[in-house]
Amino acid sequence: MPTSRLEAFSDGVFAIAITLLVLDIRVPKDPPDGLARALVDQWPNYAAYVVSFLIIGIIWVNHHATFQNVRRVDRPLLFVNLALLLVVAAIPFPTALLAEYLLSSDGAHVAAAVYSAVMLAMSICFVALWAYLARRPELLDGSVGASVARERLRRSSLGIVVYPFTIALAFVSAPLTLAVHFGIALFYVFERVSLEADGSPNQPG
Amino acid sequence: MPTSRLEAFSDGVFAIAITLLVLDIRVPKDPPDGLARALVDQWPNYAAYVVSFLIIGIIWVNHHATFQNVRRVDRPLLFVNLALLLVVAAIPFPTALLAEYLLSSDGAHVAAAVYSAVMLAMSICFVALWAYLARRPELLDGSVGASVARERLRRSSLGIVVYPFTIALAFVSAPLTLAVHFGIALFYVFERVSLEADGSPNQPG
Amino acid sequence: MPTSRLEAFSDGVFAIAITLLVLDIRVPKDPPDGLARALVDQWPNYAAYVVSFLIIGIIWVNHHATFQNVRRVDRPLLFVNLALLLVVAAIPFPTALLAEYLLSSDGAHVAAAVYSAVMLAMSICFVALWAYLARRPELLDGSVGASVARERLRRSSLGIVVYPFTIALAFVSAPLTLAVHFGIALFYVFERVSLEADGSPNQPG
Amino acid sequence: MPTSRLEAFSDGVFAIAITLLVLDIRVPKDPPDGLARALVDQWPNYAAYVVSFLIIGIIWVNHHATFQNVRRVDRPLLFVNLALLLVVAAIPFPTALLAEYLLSSDGAHVAAAVYSAVMLAMSICFVALWAYLARRPELLDGSVGASVARERLRRSSLGIVVYPFTIALAFVSAPLTLAVHFGIALFYVFERVSLEADGSPNQPG
Repeated sequence: MPTSRLEAFSDGVFAIAITLLVLDIRVPKDPPDGLARALVDQWPNYAAYVVSFLIIGIIWVNHHATFQNVRRVDRPLLFVNLALLLVVAAIPFPTALLAEYLLSSDGAHVAAAVYSAVMLAMSICFVALWAYLARRPELLDGSVGASVARERLRRSSLGIVVYPFTIALAFVSAPLTLAVHFGIALFYVFERVSLEADGSPNQPG
Repeated sequence: MPTSRLEAFSDGVFAIAITLLVLDIRVPKDPPDGLARALVDQWPNYAAYVVSFLIIGIIWVNHHATFQNVRRVDRPLLFVNLALLLVVAAIPFPTALLAEYLLSSDGAHVAAAVYSAVMLAMSICFVALWAYLARRPELLDGSVGASVARERLRRSSLGIVVYPFTIALAFVSAPLTLAVHFGIALFYVFERVSLEADGSPNQPG
Repeated sequence: MPTSRLEAFSDGVFAIAITLLVLDIRVPKDPPDGLARALVDQWPNYAAYVVSFLIIGIIWVNHHATFQNVRRVDRPLLFVNLALLLVVAAIPFPTALLAEYLLSSDGAHVAAAVYSAVMLAMSICFVALWAYLARRPELLDGSVGASVARERLRRSSLGIVVYPFTIALAFVSAPLTLAVHFGIALFYVFERVSLEADGSPNQPG
Repeated sequence: MPTSRLEAFSDGVFAIAITLLVLDIRVPKDPPDGLARALVDQWPNYAAYVVSFLIIGIIWVNHHATFQNVRRVDRPLLFVNLALLLVVAAIPFPTALLAEYLLSSDGAHVAAAVYSAVMLAMSICFVALWAYLARRPELLDGSVGASVARERLRRSSLGIVVYPFTIALAFVSAPLTLAVHFGIALFYVFERVSLEADGSPNQPG
């Protein structure tokens, strides 16, 4: 199977998952203190929408950056990618969960921990992708050596170091956990900057 | 990253957001005065569906017209585009909100203001897109000079002048605000006409 | 704009609308006479799902057959197509409405009339598409003359003759109306057969 | 019609159906024993999500493997494919049904039987696809003879032998039925291995 089909299918899943996020922002019904107040009070939904949108957007960018280096797809790679999509397609659920319980006295910690655990699962899938590719360099583009694959594996491993801390942080403060996920997303935006400044010959900017 | 991938992903988000709009038109349950009356009474939902459908359709057309001028995508452009998609994917929410409260004595003004504010945010994203491109003409197609980019920037700036007035208008009349958004959408349809009549050499019609 | 982009966007809307149909088939909650009975009792939902799925599938096939004859897309064609998509994306609503009220003593006639009216609107959009193309043969592929366009216009006009009868029939019997829509869909399947047997040189089968 | 359009449309339906599965995992409201307990208690939803995701993923892979052998699409093939998509797009419903009733004393057997019946329907569509192709080898790629088509037909017929047993098993134990569907999905993963090891010359791994 050429990578183009796998990328097109994955893009479809990313585009749908990112657009389904909005379904968790509900129209307030019969707000007792007026609509304006009810809309302000559901700010956790907007915050969770923005953070999850940014995260899926970055996963999409990283997914493309990954598969630009891949020449052909074999069966195990297909199923590692399917595992990644399974996690990405699930993101609307922890997003809705965290938005619902962010300010709750009871479930906030659990909701934030579930959110962080899903991000950890996503990160593990990326590590599995690069770990497999590092051992099968014949699947990679000619210009990408095994050393580059190992370098990418090391960089993508950052997530499985950082996300367990966010699971622990969830039991301290749920809003802080969401803020940290926002920060990590921004970090990945800038990490991509340095990657591109290093690596990509046709983007010298 | 070539523009084709970014366009395909953006098209996916546009197509999904435009199709999710229908989920806000609900089947009436146990209507006390008969189904026909209940269906007529939810005309705000149909009106909001048509206006938002037309708006997303025009955004899609403008998005393509924009990226036809772009030769390659760098990282800041990618994230400005992601911000635009974040706003477009959110449109089903203000659409449902405005439909629900259009005739309400209480929330109508707030709902119409939120709707207008989301359109302003969308407009700001387009301005940011062209402002960035005007300063980075090397990302543009060879045939498109910096002067064309500045011209497009000026045209797209129209929205950030007009939409604040619709926010103000929201506090006068919500149905009128929706009608004005419909009118603006029709204006953009005809503005595209004049753009094409001016500009595009292979569409002399 | 080349037809390929318009087709890709339209395909996205068709694929999403056809897949959203399933959201109207709900899991029964606390069925008093057991789950099996509750599942059997919601047969109108399955029937409406199958008929609407078949109809959107046929619209998709016809849409492609139409745009295979089109060489380039101008602005009015773009907006006629957007009107068609607006109707197609709305189909999940009349489908849910008809399923909900098919066996109701009260709303069945109205629901079936709405369903038929949406099909009439869809048919009018196809007629508008071909009426426009028949007057602008320069948009058509070289091999397709104005006479072919007029022939296609005449064939597509069939719908605007037939669907008003289904609106009238709705006030006789809603289940019969749904059955007739199923029959019309099957007819279009076979009409395509004869079209292909006539026309398409590379499909001699 | 070239196979590329049919595959793109089918991919869209697969991507949407697989992503809609997550909508059945609901955020618990006011859980009496705490959120953690409520999340653990809805494990049938996660299990059904994973199994259905894997199944649709495998259908997607098999669909591509099938159409890689097809050179052109005629009308009956188009409608057999549409029947397959009708079943795939419906999968979110039996998934939600089985998740809801998996541990119920009353509806579990019926829900598991419906789930199994949908898988049987899917299998029948694949058999119909290959049965048609085996009789029309001129639609197949030059390198694929009628004997290969008959071999594929025999392999795909496995499902219509196995799935009736899962319908019977549903009346013994619903959780066991879900586990068997998970096992069958894994089997198809490995069956694809042997197919690729046999057949595909450019994947010698």
